[in-house]
Amino acid sequence: MVKAIEWVDGKVIMLDQTKLPLKVAFIECPDYRKVSEGIRKLWIRGAPAIGIAAAMGIALGAQDIKADNFSEFMKGLDPVFQEMLSTRPTAVNIRWAVERIKSLLMRSKDESVHRLKEILIDEAKVILQEDIEVNKAIGRWGAEFIKDGDTILTHCNAGALATGGYGTATAPMLVAREQGKKIQVIADETRPVLQGARLTAWELMQEGIPVTLITDNTAGALMKRGEINLAIVGTDRTARNGDVANKIGTYTVAILCKEHKIPFYVAAPLSSIDFSISSGEQIPIEERNPEEVTHIFGKCQIAPDGVKVRNIAFDVTPRKYVTAIITEKGAFRPKDIKKLMKKTTDLVDLRLKPSE
Amino acid sequence: MVKAIEWVDGKVIMLDQTKLPLKVAFIECPDYRKVSEGIRKLWIRGAPAIGIAAAMGIALGAQDIKADNFSEFMKGLDPVFQEMLSTRPTAVNIRWAVERIKSLLMRSKDESVHRLKEILIDEAKVILQEDIEVNKAIGRWGAEFIKDGDTILTHCNAGALATGGYGTATAPMLVAREQGKKIQVIADETRPVLQGARLTAWELMQEGIPVTLITDNTAGALMKRGEINLAIVGTDRTARNGDVANKIGTYTVAILCKEHKIPFYVAAPLSSIDFSISSGEQIPIEERNPEEVTHIFGKCQIAPDGVKVRNIAFDVTPRKYVTAIITEKGAFRPKDIKKLMKKTTDLVDLRLKPSE
Repeated sequence: MVKAIEWVDGKVIMLDQTKLPLKVAFIECPDYRKVSEGIRKLWIRGAPAIGIAAAMGIALGAQDIKADNFSEFMKGLDPVFQEMLSTRPTAVNIRWAVERIKSLLMRSKDESVHRLKEILIDEAKVILQEDIEVNKAIGRWGAEFIKDGDTILTHCNAGALATGGYGTATAPMLVAREQGKKIQVIADETRPVLQGARLTAWELMQEGIPVTLITDNTAGALMKRGEINLAIVGTDRTARNGDVANKIGTYTVAILCKEHKIPFYVAAPLSSIDFSISSGEQIPIEERNPEEVTHIFGKCQIAPDGVKVRNIAFDVTPRKYVTAIITEKGAFRPKDIKKLMKKTTDLVDLRLKPSE
Repeated sequence: MVKAIEWVDGKVIMLDQTKLPLKVAFIECPDYRKVSEGIRKLWIRGAPAIGIAAAMGIALGAQDIKADNFSEFMKGLDPVFQEMLSTRPTAVNIRWAVERIKSLLMRSKDESVHRLKEILIDEAKVILQEDIEVNKAIGRWGAEFIKDGDTILTHCNAGALATGGYGTATAPMLVAREQGKKIQVIADETRPVLQGARLTAWELMQEGIPVTLITDNTAGALMKRGEINLAIVGTDRTARNGDVANKIGTYTVAILCKEHKIPFYVAAPLSSIDFSISSGEQIPIEERNPEEVTHIFGKCQIAPDGVKVRNIAFDVTPRKYVTAIITEKGAFRPKDIKKLMKKTTDLVDLRLKPSE
């Protein structure tokens, strides 16, 4: 199984994803500064993966603190928290990891400094393991919608590389394969940053899942020929009405699916569902540097000097295009997502069954 | 006006489009071999443009023939015809140019060799001029569908660079601008070969038409925001039922237009309409080298070694997605295209009016 990040013998080992797919290079991080450099320089990316990286970075930072008591220890840890938070200021998962760890420490203030250091290592490992468990659960629910012989389209990378393991959109593929189903995957290259070509194609090849790379322009033609049975994508953020924000081009895939009557699934850990917003209209959409479009990998110039560019990084797919949102608790119709807010909801009845 | 090819002082001047958009380099072709090299090496591309290049190459070749009579002249010209036909074996326009010139020569067999050489130069210039006139006419009919302030999406390059001048899909934009309408154009980059980024963006910048480059993934998001008023694309071949074959991704643009209720126009000189085939199903679709997808410009590798690729070069857009096909004789509903086969058809009644 492809691993973006691991804790090995008191160090963090990170796969340098910026070198993929040309080179598989692991970077050993002996201290928290190297971990934060990795997050900053995108050696590691993907919301769950950088949350895990931050937790591991904090655990590493803790080991070097010389302190006699809880308050000195917390004082020593503060620059580590600050460093992690500053790596990618808008990354929700880093903030989440920092808050989770702070809260754990507050509950553990009676422990010795030696024990606190152990607690932080354990917690980082728990965060990694929980992420893998969530993804496996998404995989099990999602695999119900995959039939033997299916060809699955995916867009961008919501794979093992973006998570602790298994991925979100890729988890149903991995589980379907474990169940003995013969599947193949079509990966959109996903311009401008080419996560599909660089990461998804690479990691599925590592897993031995047959994968075919296409340009983003080609999905429609393959659907028309009947060569795609379903689409599964990830999400950066899903609103409580079931609107889905994800990498630019996802909306186009969803419309193509509708036009060809192909089911369109979104793999979404509950942590990526933002119950505080009522619709996708409220999700802020980042526009990024024109260079991502005009220069491939910052090097290969493909457009005229000075050309005006719109580089919209994400789009919102309205829920009417979404067949189901697959979470670790089950697959649900987008309109039913808001019902997950109530702890008392009967999930068994609410779940979308593959036959429906 | 951007010129892909010109006849200047007894030589052919060709813009080396393989260097665009990084370098604007013109190549002087003193003989037919240099012209054929240019067609082979894609210094010039686009169906009408290479037809013109072949005619000019033949005229150049003719000048060097030492012959005393028509039959010796034709014998001398034969290797020139063969050379042109061998440059791009599947290019319909080269065959068309060769046959047109042969037929003209047969009608001119009583002329002196000196006069025959002049006739070939004149004919090459006429072929160029006719192409420009056809495009201008497409431009006038097409401009009726463009309103002041409109933003027009286009895909691939069906511009001046692909023709003798004006382009097909770009002609309505140029005419609309001449009519004083303020327009702007959104150019899809058009993976894998990036004709939109390299050629369309460049040539519209030369013309001073405001153009914005986007990835192919971005058109849907802009349509959803209401930022695109209409789409105009070219065509490689249109069937008599109105199905349109064009660069891969065109079908996706058409579906996006339908979903957002945006008109989708195809600029098609009558020469690109194949009345011999009843539907787009019969148009053979080329699949090309995986390297076009995995290596940008044959250099920048973006995908894992050995990854499987589908590189479908064209797609077919069924006529139900096409608002109108704009020819030099007018804009017509796709279902009416077949009526153009009859010389007696009343075009005035048949034409689609902008208000409809």
